[in-house]
Amino acid sequence: MTDPEAPRIEIVTIGSELLRGDTIDTNGAWLGRALLDMGIAVARRVTVADDNDAIRDAVEAALHRTGAVLCTGGLGPTTDDLTRDVVADLFDMPLQRNEPVLDAIRRRFDDMGVVMPEINVRQAMVPAGARVLDNRNGTAPGLLLEDDRGLAILLPGVPGELYPLFNESVAPLLRERWAGRLPPIRRALLRTTGAGESRVMEEVADLIEAVRPVDIAFLPHTTGVDVRLSVRGDAGEDDVLEAAARRFQDRLHRWVYTTEELDLAECVGASLRRQRRFLVLAESCTGGLIAKRVTDIPGSSAWFATGWVTYANDAKIRDLGVGAADLERFGAVSEIVARQMASGARRRSGAACAIAVTGIAGPGGASADKPLGTVWIATDVNGDVTARSYRFSGSREQVRERAAQAALRLLQQRLDAPAGSRSWND
Amino acid sequence: MTDPEAPRIEIVTIGSELLRGDTIDTNGAWLGRALLDMGIAVARRVTVADDNDAIRDAVEAALHRTGAVLCTGGLGPTTDDLTRDVVADLFDMPLQRNEPVLDAIRRRFDDMGVVMPEINVRQAMVPAGARVLDNRNGTAPGLLLEDDRGLAILLPGVPGELYPLFNESVAPLLRERWAGRLPPIRRALLRTTGAGESRVMEEVADLIEAVRPVDIAFLPHTTGVDVRLSVRGDAGEDDVLEAAARRFQDRLHRWVYTTEELDLAECVGASLRRQRRFLVLAESCTGGLIAKRVTDIPGSSAWFATGWVTYANDAKIRDLGVGAADLERFGAVSEIVARQMASGARRRSGAACAIAVTGIAGPGGASADKPLGTVWIATDVNGDVTARSYRFSGSREQVRERAAQAALRLLQQRLDAPAGSRSWND
Repeated sequence: MTDPEAPRIEIVTIGSELLRGDTIDTNGAWLGRALLDMGIAVARRVTVADDNDAIRDAVEAALHRTGAVLCTGGLGPTTDDLTRDVVADLFDMPLQRNEPVLDAIRRRFDDMGVVMPEINVRQAMVPAGARVLDNRNGTAPGLLLEDDRGLAILLPGVPGELYPLFNESVAPLLRERWAGRLPPIRRALLRTTGAGESRVMEEVADLIEAVRPVDIAFLPHTTGVDVRLSVRGDAGEDDVLEAAARRFQDRLHRWVYTTEELDLAECVGASLRRQRRFLVLAESCTGGLIAKRVTDIPGSSAWFATGWVTYANDAKIRDLGVGAADLERFGAVSEIVARQMASGARRRSGAACAIAVTGIAGPGGASADKPLGTVWIATDVNGDVTARSYRFSGSREQVRERAAQAALRLLQQRLDAPAGSRSWND
Repeated sequence: MTDPEAPRIEIVTIGSELLRGDTIDTNGAWLGRALLDMGIAVARRVTVADDNDAIRDAVEAALHRTGAVLCTGGLGPTTDDLTRDVVADLFDMPLQRNEPVLDAIRRRFDDMGVVMPEINVRQAMVPAGARVLDNRNGTAPGLLLEDDRGLAILLPGVPGELYPLFNESVAPLLRERWAGRLPPIRRALLRTTGAGESRVMEEVADLIEAVRPVDIAFLPHTTGVDVRLSVRGDAGEDDVLEAAARRFQDRLHRWVYTTEELDLAECVGASLRRQRRFLVLAESCTGGLIAKRVTDIPGSSAWFATGWVTYANDAKIRDLGVGAADLERFGAVSEIVARQMASGARRRSGAACAIAVTGIAGPGGASADKPLGTVWIATDVNGDVTARSYRFSGSREQVRERAAQAALRLLQQRLDAPAGSRSWND
């Protein structure tokens, strides 16, 4: 993916609130993906405060390095919105009042039944010779300035204005400018769970060089590792990408839960829906986290019926029929309790499938034989109950997230296993 | 708040996945706030790819500008984790295998019952003369390098490792280093829910100037608005801050749920614990989200007993005793069903308090008389049942989050109301 001929651009994000931590920069990631999808690499992203010198220095350095810079933010009407002034000065293009832009701003206020505040006139000031990019979702137009040092594009920082402006004005302009230099990029994805990043990499270490020119990236999350494959080129590269993805799939199949941009809960939901089965949940240590993930999905009522968050032992006994004697003898975090929770939930609800989770998420509750992170997970599919124990690392939150993911994975493997096969439990 | 004498630092965030847009940079905002809380300003944030030259150039320029740089990411075990090597080279400190660090890494793997992959030895390579910052949540230790150009701190990019490492090791080091140059900042906080940002601002607009030199910031979230008050200076400013906070509290009391850095679920938990009462939950549209928030809190088993995620109507009937005829006649999103869910959950469990939520989170399920975002919430405290309807705006996720917050707030107001008072429902 590091094609020396591919166009590169830098992003400069302007706003003191970003450095102070009042706002998380989500635009940077959005722009990175949007540009990469066009075949343009983001070489660097710089965030500076609302400060003349800092903005000027960052824009100038970016132009010097790549000859193309995309700035977001600092185009508002107030005195701490400096981007327009600083960049106009850098390009030696004096600001002039642009009547069509001013009319458009006035019309926006009229439409809201509000008189335009005088300060908004600032947003109609356009550097002489700059190109105006129409913003139909706000008062600050985008601006494009160019001289022999390169190209600067100024866009508003509000996502609802930035994204349409980029898609409708900037993307076509860049495609035209770099026509012939933007090879299409083809991508594949393997989402895995159940192995850490180093374990996944070890498994495929020799493939990384072998599949060139396909590029491999490993993205670790709390609940698994995504493996992204990508290749630049024309339609002829389709076979290359597909062959590479197959080689990775062969090595990683134990851990791959989808090859699409889907959450594991969505994959489980798709299997349940296909098989016309309903799911119920019996959660102890995950405390509603699996139910939340399931019901995050629109339409999950077509395959999810009900859940119990049986945090207290007497709720496990009363609502799920767990044996009081077994709880006493083996403890809540035990194979037998996990199995009884799953079968109790399934039988009580009449659903086809149940998942039960009981474990020690911490920080309290651990003992010598049941250390922190010990979790028992059971699944019941039509009366066939299976249980498995895990030992998850990390904080309370991480243990809970990993337990929820493992529980969904365990059910997915049972649902998707070939009929009669028990090999899902390897 | 812009003190020219205040220490400044730059952040360099390393990872191609950040530029490609595979990952959103949430660490930058977190660090910005954590540093600012100590009186240290972030002068700039730069994101570069996993590339030798780019990392070196960014770190060197940051050192040159401010003499202090904090790098995150690129400390993993794989070959594209370059930060350690590049910065060691920049400081001319050759990498050496550090046996105590290697032992700690090996122990982490042992504890999980896994043999350490050979590639993790890379994470035990420490620049000669660098200080090791212990990472108790992962295998990559933090590193601190220093020469006459200044200070570079290298930290892992995984939030679950970065945040504790910063709080436990980096913050004390920086406080010591810049002792006397970090003016104490005194802060107060009012966390509100139930009113939008413009409504909150309107209520206190005249106070903002009146309370100078106390500085006011409004931080809107999906579930409410935080009002932060801060003032620089010595102990003499305590009274000024306290007086200002009181004036804001007087205006905003209807919406303020805490003046501490607590989640609303923690506040409710504290009230329940104090009153020796137990909570149970009956969730439909929030689908386990409230239970998840409650069980996110360590020790919540002292005041939370059990929850039902009765997504399907027959579960509402079977497990909570909701009347089938009422469901038929009034629909699941109705006052009577919310009340029956709350009292059914409370009676069945024997707990003192119950919350029930039923609503339309979307995107489907809306009708002319029950538009999207319609939610009924009921609470039952010792048999005294109250219900209230809401209309939340936003996406499915936002409606769910707002409903969960409103439900907890409703119970909090009942628990914290003076005995005999009904004014909690204003």
